[in-house]
Amino acid sequence: MTEPQRLAPLAPGARVGIIGGGQLGRMLAMAAARLGLSCHVYTDRADDPATEVAAAATIAGYGDKEALGRFVADVDVVTYEFENIPAATAEYLNAARPVRPSPGVLALTQDRLVEKNFISGLGIEVAPYAQVDDPGALARAVAQVGRPSILKTRRFGYDGKGQSLIREGSDIAVAFRSLGGQPAILEGFVPFVCEVSVVAARGLDGDFVAWDIGRNTHEHHILATTTVPADIGPDLTARAFDKARKIADALDYVGVLAVEMFLVEGPGGRRLLVNEIAPRVHNSGHWTLDGSVTSQFEQHLRAICGFPLGSARAHGPVEMRNLIGGDILRWRELLAQPGACLHLYGKSEARPGRKMGHVTFLRSVKD
Amino acid sequence: MTEPQRLAPLAPGARVGIIGGGQLGRMLAMAAARLGLSCHVYTDRADDPATEVAAAATIAGYGDKEALGRFVADVDVVTYEFENIPAATAEYLNAARPVRPSPGVLALTQDRLVEKNFISGLGIEVAPYAQVDDPGALARAVAQVGRPSILKTRRFGYDGKGQSLIREGSDIAVAFRSLGGQPAILEGFVPFVCEVSVVAARGLDGDFVAWDIGRNTHEHHILATTTVPADIGPDLTARAFDKARKIADALDYVGVLAVEMFLVEGPGGRRLLVNEIAPRVHNSGHWTLDGSVTSQFEQHLRAICGFPLGSARAHGPVEMRNLIGGDILRWRELLAQPGACLHLYGKSEARPGRKMGHVTFLRSVKD
Repeated sequence: MTEPQRLAPLAPGARVGIIGGGQLGRMLAMAAARLGLSCHVYTDRADDPATEVAAAATIAGYGDKEALGRFVADVDVVTYEFENIPAATAEYLNAARPVRPSPGVLALTQDRLVEKNFISGLGIEVAPYAQVDDPGALARAVAQVGRPSILKTRRFGYDGKGQSLIREGSDIAVAFRSLGGQPAILEGFVPFVCEVSVVAARGLDGDFVAWDIGRNTHEHHILATTTVPADIGPDLTARAFDKARKIADALDYVGVLAVEMFLVEGPGGRRLLVNEIAPRVHNSGHWTLDGSVTSQFEQHLRAICGFPLGSARAHGPVEMRNLIGGDILRWRELLAQPGACLHLYGKSEARPGRKMGHVTFLRSVKD
Repeated sequence: MTEPQRLAPLAPGARVGIIGGGQLGRMLAMAAARLGLSCHVYTDRADDPATEVAAAATIAGYGDKEALGRFVADVDVVTYEFENIPAATAEYLNAARPVRPSPGVLALTQDRLVEKNFISGLGIEVAPYAQVDDPGALARAVAQVGRPSILKTRRFGYDGKGQSLIREGSDIAVAFRSLGGQPAILEGFVPFVCEVSVVAARGLDGDFVAWDIGRNTHEHHILATTTVPADIGPDLTARAFDKARKIADALDYVGVLAVEMFLVEGPGGRRLLVNEIAPRVHNSGHWTLDGSVTSQFEQHLRAICGFPLGSARAHGPVEMRNLIGGDILRWRELLAQPGACLHLYGKSEARPGRKMGHVTFLRSVKD
């Protein structure tokens, strides 16, 4: 496929390949069906919830070239619901059909160090950080970044996994070993006022559309709630959008992305540090399904298919709450609440810490 | 299954059987997935659009007892997207699992004469009508109902099929023969101001929730647009809701229904005549997907599963427009319009008169 064809927009009837079969893939597949697109989900787990609502599914390993070859031949464009896809897999697929966001974006966001270097290089402030490849480097990093700080693997960490907190008195050799000797990054602990995220889309033509900013809370390192609007004032709001747009433009990004930021107090007033880029639809954008004209899932599909982006206008203030593990047992009570929009992911087993669903409360609905 | 079990509510994880695989079945299946329900679609056409988004599909005739038996054994509750299901099929399924709305509702709404007798029997005004079983009866009916009037088959007509207009000078013998000698009904032509429809749900517990009333226009006997709110004034609005609720209660209805009404001018002012009951989700309720807190599809599933009903609050004024045949070619232009929410049904062939999708314009969205 040559570059001009690669940039040609698709049309309804096209088939979208989705790598990953969890709830994000499931909600992407449902949004695709709305637009008259069909989906082929590729996952390594047979009982993944996305397979149930997709026209086709491949259950195979993410490095299985034969299965990947058949999958990519069946689709017009490839996207993904999680960023820990092997780089070789993304490149292999991209040789046959456009992978959006691009394999380059994937490689960058798979490595915390590369990602932070990239963001800093754009002149966007991040929390203090330092590269840690061995125990000696960790000692130097702690001296530079200070305590408390957080040692994280550069790759494949999520929801608090692959992290170690370094306090006053922590044994840094123990901390380094706890990560299994993987290349790591030390991040300074930032006493933030709150965490916010910008969820936005960039189209194939460079058009950029962002939803209202959400304010996030976490419990046990997992997103608990997103409140929209974040009410951080017009000045910080504009600066948050600018940062997200600068990042998306620099990546020549296509699709929905989330940019997590810390709001911190400083001598010069409040400012925002960018914490992390998620190159995909994001949990903090789930509220858009019920609270906005265009959902993040539909917007992502519009972007990767080269369709015009939709309005990101919110219907009113919302709070999204994740349903983790046994929270799902409250489904009936939640359904009975006015303005509560319930989403369950169809997972069979409600293990502790597992995202089973979410509920969006439309705050303006009282009946 | 005994009656008490029959009335027990289901829970997420349950499987819903849907008879019919068109766009209504497709949108029901997608709403089911949102609620953590899985779907098994039963249709006689292999390429029907609902099969693509359902966990399971059976392609077999509607009278195929063996296939129906396997289907019903796989599900917890049965519903349908069209009312022309053979009565014997509905009874057969209902013996194994609850069919909602009930086979009795189905039988009643399958016969225009029985339906009109039922509505009239509730003290609700309908257009003048008369039973027509033979050419002689047609002559008497025309004398009673007058001209112009419309001769319709009692059963299996839709979108203007199985109808013949009787004007001044029409040869009534020709009109009768044009319907192939089937039992028919003559309906007086009503010079209405507009057609409106009440789309509402009644829960397993008798709870009744209606959306704002829509004003419908037709082109070539097919619904073209629904505008919400219908702006018929508070008095007529209340009377329209009363009629719909009276009908739903009398049928001990479970699920979403649409009640089409004609708004007519008379010596005593404006009044509403009930035209037709649709015992299912309805095209004039499609706007609820984007324009309301709970969509008609989710509400139908809540009702038939015994879940609490959701809020029917509208986000603001809307217009829904069907995309018929080649209208679908405008998809790109529609996607680019602010506040236009596009739904395409994934049908491969855009035949003239075929419903290919719809678009809901949220009138309050300008950007």
